[in-house]
Amino acid sequence: MDTVAAYHFGWIDAQGRPSDGDGGKAVRPALALLSAEAAGAAPEVGVPGAVAVELVHNFSLLHDDLMDGDEQRRHRDTVWKVHGPAQAILVGDALFALANEVLLEIGTVEAGRATRRLTTATRKLIDGQAQDISYEHRERVTVEECLEMEGNKTGALLACAVSIGAVLGGADDRTADTLESYGYHLGLAFQAVDDLLGIWGDPVATGKQTWSDLRQRKKSLPVVAALAAGGPASERLGELLAADAKSNDVDSFSEEEFATRAALIEEAGGREWTSQEARRQHTVAIEALSGVDMPERVRAQLVALADFVVVRKR
Amino acid sequence: MDTVAAYHFGWIDAQGRPSDGDGGKAVRPALALLSAEAAGAAPEVGVPGAVAVELVHNFSLLHDDLMDGDEQRRHRDTVWKVHGPAQAILVGDALFALANEVLLEIGTVEAGRATRRLTTATRKLIDGQAQDISYEHRERVTVEECLEMEGNKTGALLACAVSIGAVLGGADDRTADTLESYGYHLGLAFQAVDDLLGIWGDPVATGKQTWSDLRQRKKSLPVVAALAAGGPASERLGELLAADAKSNDVDSFSEEEFATRAALIEEAGGREWTSQEARRQHTVAIEALSGVDMPERVRAQLVALADFVVVRKR
Repeated sequence: MDTVAAYHFGWIDAQGRPSDGDGGKAVRPALALLSAEAAGAAPEVGVPGAVAVELVHNFSLLHDDLMDGDEQRRHRDTVWKVHGPAQAILVGDALFALANEVLLEIGTVEAGRATRRLTTATRKLIDGQAQDISYEHRERVTVEECLEMEGNKTGALLACAVSIGAVLGGADDRTADTLESYGYHLGLAFQAVDDLLGIWGDPVATGKQTWSDLRQRKKSLPVVAALAAGGPASERLGELLAADAKSNDVDSFSEEEFATRAALIEEAGGREWTSQEARRQHTVAIEALSGVDMPERVRAQLVALADFVVVRKR
Repeated sequence: MDTVAAYHFGWIDAQGRPSDGDGGKAVRPALALLSAEAAGAAPEVGVPGAVAVELVHNFSLLHDDLMDGDEQRRHRDTVWKVHGPAQAILVGDALFALANEVLLEIGTVEAGRATRRLTTATRKLIDGQAQDISYEHRERVTVEECLEMEGNKTGALLACAVSIGAVLGGADDRTADTLESYGYHLGLAFQAVDDLLGIWGDPVATGKQTWSDLRQRKKSLPVVAALAAGGPASERLGELLAADAKSNDVDSFSEEEFATRAALIEEAGGREWTSQEARRQHTVAIEALSGVDMPERVRAQLVALADFVVVRKR
């Protein structure tokens, strides 16, 4: 299984040769180290938490790419494409188990509390993926349902990343909960940007296929916002997507057919609404930070991370 | 996801109607309750442990059935056959997360220790499944490799089941480790019988397909023991399996072709060796019990459970 995990993290290529591939943005581990510092502990105290959240994140990527049929991640073929579905399942399971082991082997009460938060976040993440998949087969999904799904799928683990270092550093539950509030809204901003990149992202930057979310019929924020907006573009989009839902031909769509759908989403206001939503969530996240007394340097870095999340191109 | 989980546990049928389907033998939860009693605690103390080990067991069944392509379990179509691969992955993940949550929400130091043992056992179980899959594509697997794989795949979680209730009841590590030794060898006995049932089991009793392990080219104990035995039947079996490994036609084999392979395994002594191995492991398991001071009634039940494991037909 090490070979498969090493390939996923970009340490070796598909032929097993050493490689320095893209291993992801490491937003969650960065947050976990800052989290320890926010509670007045040394950043090293957050390391097991950083490892654990990154392992859970990668467990979810391995399984989600297989469930969603995604063929590209981080500019490379996904694990199930290279090593087969069984390896993607197994190695995902192993990373999940390892995440808990890394925390529990510390053996302290704080580590137990950290593991509990991580487990709850992981269960929500799985709930979110279940909602995401079920929405692909539904004609209508409300903006509220979409935000709830994205809060589970992305918000919960980012929230945990921002509390886990603090908990390991001995922070009380109130501090941890306030940090989680920042992380949760940061997660919603992150996911809103992800949804924009999933339709209009540059494949050279994102490392994913063009129109990747449209290929999977994802009911992401720009889509549900466009459908909820009303007006001619919204209605035409609704007709097209309803027909797509009944058809099995989406896999063979041309670039133009995806471009038509993307243009209608934009015309109906879905792109602009989602950009604004990212900024709204960014603001709420920054405001939550004022509820925790922390070194100014740490606060500045958490703000900078939130800024990065909304302007990123990959 | 509840619908899929309820189907897997036999509470509803494929159409969602209430059902009283076979939910499994519940060997692991039975052991977890006895485990608490072995440490002098009330059986109720073991309940979260019983729930957790049964959830981990069922997580592994959901994923393994998908990876192995198994179509029947407990006299019903497997989850991936009825609800699709994505649901089997997702609900398996959810049961795994829930197993940890059930233990950690207790919030005690003992619960942290119990979760750590469960996590380590789960990682070994995943290792064992990885070994099992890799052996399907290898021409030769030694008896030792097979026993190591089965110790990981089956022994580790049964060992955890026998220690988890005791740990929740406050037992020290030495007591827990000794109970795990009983459970580990019980697991090896259990798996040896499983391997016999996987070839010669009655589908009416097992709820699986005929020749299910041969269909999957499993290098189970009877097969590796027969290949290691030498002599004409062993050599003929080796030639057949080597040819099978290069061919993609195993899926279309007739009942006679499987029967030929089963007869050669028996003729080479693989069936008898595996029966004896089950009895050897049973004996070692019972002997380990003498290392723990426990109520005689509890000891008698652990012995009875070991006896059941080696004579069972399903």
